Amino acid sequence: SLLVRAVAIEKEVPEEQRPDSFLRESDGASSTISSSSPSVRARFEKMIRDAQDDVCAALEVVDGAGKFKEDVWSRPGGGGGISRVLQNGAVFEKAGVNVSVVYGVMPPEAYRAAKGASVGNDGDVKPGPVPFFAAGISSVLHPKNPFAPTLHFNYRYFETDAPKDTPGAPRRWWFGGGTDLTPAYIFEEDVKHFHSVQKQACDKFDPTFYPRFKKWCDDYFVIKHRNERRGLGGIFFDDLNDYDQEMLLGFSTECAKSVIPAYIPIVEKRKDIPFTEQQKDWQQLRRGRYVEFNLVYDRGTTFGLKTGGRIESILVSLPLTARWEYNHQLKEGTEEWKLLDACINPKEWI
Amino acid sequence: SLLVRAVAIEKEVPEEQRPDSFLRESDGASSTISSSSPSVRARFEKMIRDAQDDVCAALEVVDGAGKFKEDVWSRPGGGGGISRVLQNGAVFEKAGVNVSVVYGVMPPEAYRAAKGASVGNDGDVKPGPVPFFAAGISSVLHPKNPFAPTLHFNYRYFETDAPKDTPGAPRRWWFGGGTDLTPAYIFEEDVKHFHSVQKQACDKFDPTFYPRFKKWCDDYFVIKHRNERRGLGGIFFDDLNDYDQEMLLGFSTECAKSVIPAYIPIVEKRKDIPFTEQQKDWQQLRRGRYVEFNLVYDRGTTFGLKTGGRIESILVSLPLTARWEYNHQLKEGTEEWKLLDACINPKEWI
Repeated sequence: SLLVRAVAIEKEVPEEQRPDSFLRESDGASSTISSSSPSVRARFEKMIRDAQDDVCAALEVVDGAGKFKEDVWSRPGGGGGISRVLQNGAVFEKAGVNVSVVYGVMPPEAYRAAKGASVGNDGDVKPGPVPFFAAGISSVLHPKNPFAPTLHFNYRYFETDAPKDTPGAPRRWWFGGGTDLTPAYIFEEDVKHFHSVQKQACDKFDPTFYPRFKKWCDDYFVIKHRNERRGLGGIFFDDLNDYDQEMLLGFSTECAKSVIPAYIPIVEKRKDIPFTEQQKDWQQLRRGRYVEFNLVYDRGTTFGLKTGGRIESILVSLPLTARWEYNHQLKEGTEEWKLLDACINPKEWI
Repeated sequence: SLLVRAVAIEKEVPEEQRPDSFLRESDGASSTISSSSPSVRARFEKMIRDAQDDVCAALEVVDGAGKFKEDVWSRPGGGGGISRVLQNGAVFEKAGVNVSVVYGVMPPEAYRAAKGASVGNDGDVKPGPVPFFAAGISSVLHPKNPFAPTLHFNYRYFETDAPKDTPGAPRRWWFGGGTDLTPAYIFEEDVKHFHSVQKQACDKFDPTFYPRFKKWCDDYFVIKHRNERRGLGGIFFDDLNDYDQEMLLGFSTECAKSVIPAYIPIVEKRKDIPFTEQQKDWQQLRRGRYVEFNLVYDRGTTFGLKTGGRIESILVSLPLTARWEYNHQLKEGTEEWKLLDACINPKEWI
């Protein structure tokens, strides 16, 4: 998001205990019990923390051996996060599921730039620094078996406070996120299943969502210097605010809930297929492409690295191991070539 | 270099044969025979091509098994290059030694920006696009043994033509380059030897060079998001033009000639030391840091990726394999910790 990228963040502090909420009291940290209509901030936080619990539990069941380790952190200025990582399990080489809830202050230029794009010139003059709230869940799951695909998902909510020097000006808010699949080998039934679950989640809210967000995803995850995508896509959207706020909260919730049914059955089917050293090498080459996309192009990663986000949480998206061969060439028609072809020429899977 | 970064480059074409020179006739492609004083362009091209031959020959001897494979390419607009890569040898997992000689046209803004920094406002007004010439040798050598260090070196020469609309305005020129060492484990005698050879090369030309270029190197190879360097430095300089041109050509030549005596004895001593799986993993983690620096910060790499340079030549600097562990921690006082400490707090080795 343009907004999130313009903000520098203070250094985080490790915490011993996981708080019930990272919200400030004034944001309704305790309102999930006392109030009948908690704020969108509070409900979004609850949604991502529930999703973190559910996804981690499901992944531990599939893995059978590995357990998530948790790091809790907070920021002096407000907010914090929970990073959970399962490393070197039986099925997953690295699986990270992070939530963060951050308060900050945004330079007025960034606010104006974002507002201008979405709302147009409405006559506000020279606002001061704008307080903001950002919450999100972010996850990358790298299995060991080259036939089991990598999954990434991220859902986030961004809100500015009403500017203090402009009485009556409203809060502004945006939703963003997506879920995408990165296999090293194509099983058409898997890719169809994955995209079908994304489409079902979208169709519950708006029939234009799936085609629009599927294309947005194909356009976003491009490794430009290779003119290929890192994987086979899914859905992606950013800076969404031109729909009903409750609808978009419901949509984000549905998308996050779709992660388990979209992904777990695929891993179950592929995690124990025997593979050769050559097939493992191909997976590792594709992991190298994943690293290239994340370090060179991914907005969240490059923004986080340049503004002092929690490095270990940001870079948990990188695979445990990756590979780069000079001038690697594929024979047309091979399974490896078919994957690369689908990364170069995105397909309609359903 | 600021200049080189501002220029978009056309797509390259593979060539069957290596030409004697990539220079245009007017630049004295054949003058090494016919003329008694060949141009700096011609002498720099000969220097880097000799260095490529010498370094590749020395590396093949050390490796004993692997052989360099060569790719020759040219650009429609003029110039070309020779990429040589030894992959999966007995000693080296990946060794790339590339030369390129490129002609292009620079937008006037880039020329003004660079000229302004080095020459100041000299009254030129609105120059048109400025033709330039850039030649360089670039190399990264990744050995297999975790006790044998990675080496990088790069020497380059940049020249603009006299602007066509400003009669009498001179050609401008710049030199840049450096050689730096990236071990996973410190052998003090190796690092001292390496830095001593760099200092000897520098001292032949100017006693201020080594201290100045050693610090420049420590300042350049910083992985900012980790607040650590990728390795133990060496020398680095960029956009150098405030010395005699012949002197800087001689200095660059001396630096390139110092690569073999600085590096080969170290590899010979360390290539066969037995190592554990844990030591290999540590080398792989440091290789991950190398990838982070090159993809996120290195100017040559990020410029090349964004302007359509030859991708395989640019990314040959990446290791064959690399590793990222979540929240990897070191025990103080271990050999791994000593390396990291020296990457965080650069030392005077001689």
